[in-house]
Amino acid sequence: MSKGNLLYAQSGGVTAVINTTACAVIETCRKHRIRAYAARNGILGALREELIDLSREDRSAIAALRHTPGGAFGSCRFKLKSLEIDRARYERLIAVLRAHDIRYFLYNGGNDSADTSLKISAIGKELGYPLQVIGVPKTIDNDLPVTDSCPGFGSVAKYTAVSIGEASLDVASMCESSTKVFVMEVMGRHAGWIAAAAGLAATGKDAAPHIILFPEVPFDEAAFLARVEATVKRVGYCSIVVSEGLKNAEGKFLAEAGSTDAFGHTQLGGVGPLIAQLVKSRLGYKYHWAVPDYLQRSARHLASKSDVEQAYAVGKAAVEYALAGKNAEMPVIKRISTTPFKWKIEAVPITRIANIEKKLPKNFITRDGFNITAAARSYFEPLIRGEDRPPYDATTGLPKYAQLKRVLVKKKLPRYSIADK
Amino acid sequence: MSKGNLLYAQSGGVTAVINTTACAVIETCRKHRIRAYAARNGILGALREELIDLSREDRSAIAALRHTPGGAFGSCRFKLKSLEIDRARYERLIAVLRAHDIRYFLYNGGNDSADTSLKISAIGKELGYPLQVIGVPKTIDNDLPVTDSCPGFGSVAKYTAVSIGEASLDVASMCESSTKVFVMEVMGRHAGWIAAAAGLAATGKDAAPHIILFPEVPFDEAAFLARVEATVKRVGYCSIVVSEGLKNAEGKFLAEAGSTDAFGHTQLGGVGPLIAQLVKSRLGYKYHWAVPDYLQRSARHLASKSDVEQAYAVGKAAVEYALAGKNAEMPVIKRISTTPFKWKIEAVPITRIANIEKKLPKNFITRDGFNITAAARSYFEPLIRGEDRPPYDATTGLPKYAQLKRVLVKKKLPRYSIADK
Repeated sequence: MSKGNLLYAQSGGVTAVINTTACAVIETCRKHRIRAYAARNGILGALREELIDLSREDRSAIAALRHTPGGAFGSCRFKLKSLEIDRARYERLIAVLRAHDIRYFLYNGGNDSADTSLKISAIGKELGYPLQVIGVPKTIDNDLPVTDSCPGFGSVAKYTAVSIGEASLDVASMCESSTKVFVMEVMGRHAGWIAAAAGLAATGKDAAPHIILFPEVPFDEAAFLARVEATVKRVGYCSIVVSEGLKNAEGKFLAEAGSTDAFGHTQLGGVGPLIAQLVKSRLGYKYHWAVPDYLQRSARHLASKSDVEQAYAVGKAAVEYALAGKNAEMPVIKRISTTPFKWKIEAVPITRIANIEKKLPKNFITRDGFNITAAARSYFEPLIRGEDRPPYDATTGLPKYAQLKRVLVKKKLPRYSIADK
Repeated sequence: MSKGNLLYAQSGGVTAVINTTACAVIETCRKHRIRAYAARNGILGALREELIDLSREDRSAIAALRHTPGGAFGSCRFKLKSLEIDRARYERLIAVLRAHDIRYFLYNGGNDSADTSLKISAIGKELGYPLQVIGVPKTIDNDLPVTDSCPGFGSVAKYTAVSIGEASLDVASMCESSTKVFVMEVMGRHAGWIAAAAGLAATGKDAAPHIILFPEVPFDEAAFLARVEATVKRVGYCSIVVSEGLKNAEGKFLAEAGSTDAFGHTQLGGVGPLIAQLVKSRLGYKYHWAVPDYLQRSARHLASKSDVEQAYAVGKAAVEYALAGKNAEMPVIKRISTTPFKWKIEAVPITRIANIEKKLPKNFITRDGFNITAAARSYFEPLIRGEDRPPYDATTGLPKYAQLKRVLVKKKLPRYSIADK
């Protein structure tokens, strides 16, 4: 097998550990003396021939990627359509790869990227260009099938569980004379993986969070309000986690169901403030709400060690798979045992992954729809286990992140615009 | 000096390190063999004779208080009025202290509590009850005068600076095809201490946050929008920190929730989404916003080591002052030098603290009103320096917080209701 060059691209929403995967990819390429490039801003850069020359980056900067959140080379929300519709773009992509003798393409993303990987692999074959495409899993949404979990998820899970736990201790101390209801909105538009993981904080009787509102459970206002009131009466306060994807009985997102709140004010926020104001207007309790938004998926300072290890492992395996001649496959995480937590990486054809969404199992949600079960806890707990912290600067008190040069290689092809077809 | 018992009470909004102070108070009492109680839910518990018997708590639980956020014994928003109006309540308080031979009262709070401390000291004197009242500083608002900073502030400062830094790396990686403007709302009703501290994240040219909206600077919509647009054009995205206390040119809060707390303060929340939507409607940029709310003041997992050390030091000094015969004084932090950072604790009469609000110095804000100066950075940086992390449970992956028994001592007085006058 002739050794060509390798292109690594990040895709879709970034995570606290996607750069950990990038670090693994680059370090493994260096070990095997494979020349590696990173696409600037994901597939957009690949199309534009904006390739970052990774050989220009210091070893220490690459090592620091391991603990740097965000997407170091840039990511994008841009999906290539079918081979028929977007044929010119696929051909352009192959032309770029050909121009730089790139024989390995590693695409680090979620469902959409897995689908794109398949198409790129197909067009390469069709055009007679020897290319191996390896998908690399990543998504805080944890919705890829086959793999036990998705790199990026364990860290957002740890962040949400720790955060609701901390904030609830705050609320608990003040509840007699101040805030009685606290609502934290978490990400997860289509599935309640993150909301469910926040439930890990509730390790004892009446521990917070007391109520989780899942996208999987249509919002039942009366049952919810009754539960809030009972909790405040019994515990003194009520701590609530709500998924941004919460829907009403008609299947409409609550955050979009109405543009005005209970008082007729324009609804500025998401579903978190909406739920908090509902409680206030119906039950009269003083409330606070939090929407950590991007903070949750970029909180590298609170990353899960399991997650970091898995993020590194999939990156390393992806390069090894490429060098071993695999194509259209993806390294996934296979859980061998929960206690003790053991896992391994194995190769799976991307056809088994692309366009399939893994739903939160029904048996992860308690019958009343407001909490997680022991089965859920057993699945989630190992994923948030352990800490893997960035180093901090002793003077500024801030994490020391990777400082990259991001030097682009000289273009060999005519100028190209994404608008070109 | 006869050794009596000591009562410790927490007051007002809690912090990530108020329990560190509690830990210091209790450990120092134990060292000097002083019997110590904690008021349940602050002054409310003191009035109701709900006194937690700290001798019943294990040494390890007390030690764990050092790294446990929230207020372990409960705090409250309840302000005693003047000695004339609330005389019966002050007399009741003295009766409770007398019944339990409490000669030292340590009140851990902000401005309001300092004022109350003075009144309690005065009524004790008037009623001929030998009582020493020591105020202990605490507030994330950092608005107490005389002291260099307030315990609790350094940790919220570190949290906001780290969080806006992390989230901005996320935004930077996606900005070409996704979110271009990110807004994070932070606490600070009357002064921009926390907003200013978030500016510490901007350690390089064009580093985030690019714009800080301070309560001290009347919101100038046109200047703000021009700055956002210029930043997006130059940097690719714009990261904004807005204080909940942002006001318009008429001095009105931009976002008013309409309700007020027990002190008559307006309950705020929602200026973050407001600013984000303004940007969207005027400039058309895709936005995201975050409101960490209580997460910021309870984030013990990201506490500043300087802050933890100072929080412990004021608690220890408070007990020592009490035992040394001081009354109506408060241990405050005096900065000896910034480089290297050196500080000491000294006693100050509470009269110099109560009812005086320390404003953010004018020279901390750049002339354009959107950033912090080198002087600000020099003041803030040592306060967020160093990390002091809680231990984590190896199985759950969550911080291990103090588990207290909170056993109340037997009441000696007739039943009392706060409604009684």
